[in-house]
Amino acid sequence: MLPKRTLMGPGPSNIYPEVLRAMSQPTIGHLDPAFVGLMDEINTLLQRAFITQNAVTLPISAPGSAGMECCFVNLLEPGDKVVIAINGVFGGRMMENARRCGAHPVPVEFEWGTPIDPNRVEDVLKENSDATAIAFVHSETSTGVRSDAKSLCQLARQYDCLSIVDAVTSLGGIELRIDDWGVDAVYSGSQKCLSAPPGLSPVSFNERAMDKATNRKAPAQSWFLDLALLTGYWSTGSKRAYHHTAPVNSLFALHAALEILHREGLENSWQRHADTYQQLHDGLQELDIEYLVDPEYRLPQLNTVKVPAGVNEAEIRTRLLNEFNLEIGAGLGPMAGKYWRIGLMGASCTSEHVELCLKALQAVLHH
Amino acid sequence: MLPKRTLMGPGPSNIYPEVLRAMSQPTIGHLDPAFVGLMDEINTLLQRAFITQNAVTLPISAPGSAGMECCFVNLLEPGDKVVIAINGVFGGRMMENARRCGAHPVPVEFEWGTPIDPNRVEDVLKENSDATAIAFVHSETSTGVRSDAKSLCQLARQYDCLSIVDAVTSLGGIELRIDDWGVDAVYSGSQKCLSAPPGLSPVSFNERAMDKATNRKAPAQSWFLDLALLTGYWSTGSKRAYHHTAPVNSLFALHAALEILHREGLENSWQRHADTYQQLHDGLQELDIEYLVDPEYRLPQLNTVKVPAGVNEAEIRTRLLNEFNLEIGAGLGPMAGKYWRIGLMGASCTSEHVELCLKALQAVLHH
Repeated sequence: MLPKRTLMGPGPSNIYPEVLRAMSQPTIGHLDPAFVGLMDEINTLLQRAFITQNAVTLPISAPGSAGMECCFVNLLEPGDKVVIAINGVFGGRMMENARRCGAHPVPVEFEWGTPIDPNRVEDVLKENSDATAIAFVHSETSTGVRSDAKSLCQLARQYDCLSIVDAVTSLGGIELRIDDWGVDAVYSGSQKCLSAPPGLSPVSFNERAMDKATNRKAPAQSWFLDLALLTGYWSTGSKRAYHHTAPVNSLFALHAALEILHREGLENSWQRHADTYQQLHDGLQELDIEYLVDPEYRLPQLNTVKVPAGVNEAEIRTRLLNEFNLEIGAGLGPMAGKYWRIGLMGASCTSEHVELCLKALQAVLHH
Repeated sequence: MLPKRTLMGPGPSNIYPEVLRAMSQPTIGHLDPAFVGLMDEINTLLQRAFITQNAVTLPISAPGSAGMECCFVNLLEPGDKVVIAINGVFGGRMMENARRCGAHPVPVEFEWGTPIDPNRVEDVLKENSDATAIAFVHSETSTGVRSDAKSLCQLARQYDCLSIVDAVTSLGGIELRIDDWGVDAVYSGSQKCLSAPPGLSPVSFNERAMDKATNRKAPAQSWFLDLALLTGYWSTGSKRAYHHTAPVNSLFALHAALEILHREGLENSWQRHADTYQQLHDGLQELDIEYLVDPEYRLPQLNTVKVPAGVNEAEIRTRLLNEFNLEIGAGLGPMAGKYWRIGLMGASCTSEHVELCLKALQAVLHH
């Protein structure tokens, strides 16, 4: 028997019972007309979540890391130069992806815990006028920092680059406007603020991005992630062409999670994340627990806070898990051992969870 | 409300209620000790299903197509020559994977519906003594043909090649012995004879394969499918290193499905597939429906049969779906319009399902 946890780490978040029930519906064929109808609905529900009219808006049948790779292998060709802003783990992963595509990544590094400074990115774009893309993380899950995606995407357009945006932790939790901001390619994850089970990566590509993807000299190096094949599989009507077997039950779950999001309303969901963050923030202040990130750049859904002096952070997490069935996250990379990451994502983002978390932290820190 | 289907196509197969219940357990963190314990158990359960001691035996967090790609991107380097036997759709997909790795695939083609002839493969190996790998499909899901994996893997060893084996439709349904047969790398799927939901691809690599994967000049071109990173994530104990977020609930389901398989017994499962095939075969004979494949090469779990003359095959499948909630598969590629594929996989492989299928076919063909 598995334990029941309150999930307040960097994801996965708790899943609504309705979503778990949807996922456990009997599997149907991935070519069944009933399933094809569900795919069309997922396309529409995702467009609304991303606030986009992009036809190519679909969930990759694999986790967020595959969504990232889908963007890189389709939008970069060998030799292409891509400017990558790095202010945490996932910017570093983008470097790795670009190298493996045979592209030339140009890193622009920022201190972990600070946002990406568009001015410094612009300086690098000026020095690299042959760059074809810029890539950055909107919500850095490793540090809890929000960067200014709108300005960065405008820069990309100004310097004739495609923008590739990591919105894994953004979608559903904070403002994200794909069309208004001019985001060319974006990937997210199912297991953060959407509160669907981990394993799917919603992506969206506009026409500029699809132009690049479909006018490559050679096909994308990944067959599984080839947008030309994926769009054939996800296209509506009689043009649909078999590519892989979709993860049917996971898509049942994503569909249900997206319906819950839109029932609440996207902007209401953003507001709930902001309000619940404030409650957590106030409670942590009373416990003298400090934030890593300056208030204006903080992600409400991912709170990186300092481990109090003299405290064994791993022991505290273990006690929270064992005594309260409460999961919070450890620090990643240079943050390991010094910071915790407290997530307020999707179904995990409630006033009751904040109360539990504060009560539990107080108990284990003082006894 | 989704329809409840009897799934007798080429996969997904029906899922046991116990597996659906396991999948709908509340999500826990992918670094939770309870989940890490489950990963270790999945490793052991998969080793038993593949009949292997290979330490690197794990489910890729994506469908079978990604399992195929994992083998190719890790075991082939640019310029490597790979001999690929093709007797259906999935051999063709291997060609595409090899090309995208920058490898030189040498195809050996066989008529669809016939097995791979090891003698012809050996001729090609003799002419291509610089080949480093051979790849082939054990159970061709597009035609219902079983090829002689043991002989082909022996050939690979004899010509100093790695063997890459597609066992997507084999695992759990027919004899498959990774260690005894000397299979170097194998991938399968969750949604065929294991009767777990689609979306996972169990793979296994022996030391010869891992030698190649870990001594490459450059890392694998896929970050998501890089075996060096995946084995770090799936390694036991304190060495475990974060790679991606595992599809937690899908792994709950795979775990439950593997427990059911081993409760029945692997060889008992093979026998059930053989017996149920015989029942279907006898019934189809009474309906004058003929098989594509010679008896000795037939897969019990995937029956490719001729559409009777003058029958609109798509209309029949639609009627089976609408009147009996029964899914059977269409032909793929050159088989389209002329053949059906009737699957008997995992939970779908029962005497009752065969009776339903025969009754339904008789009804719609004669009215």
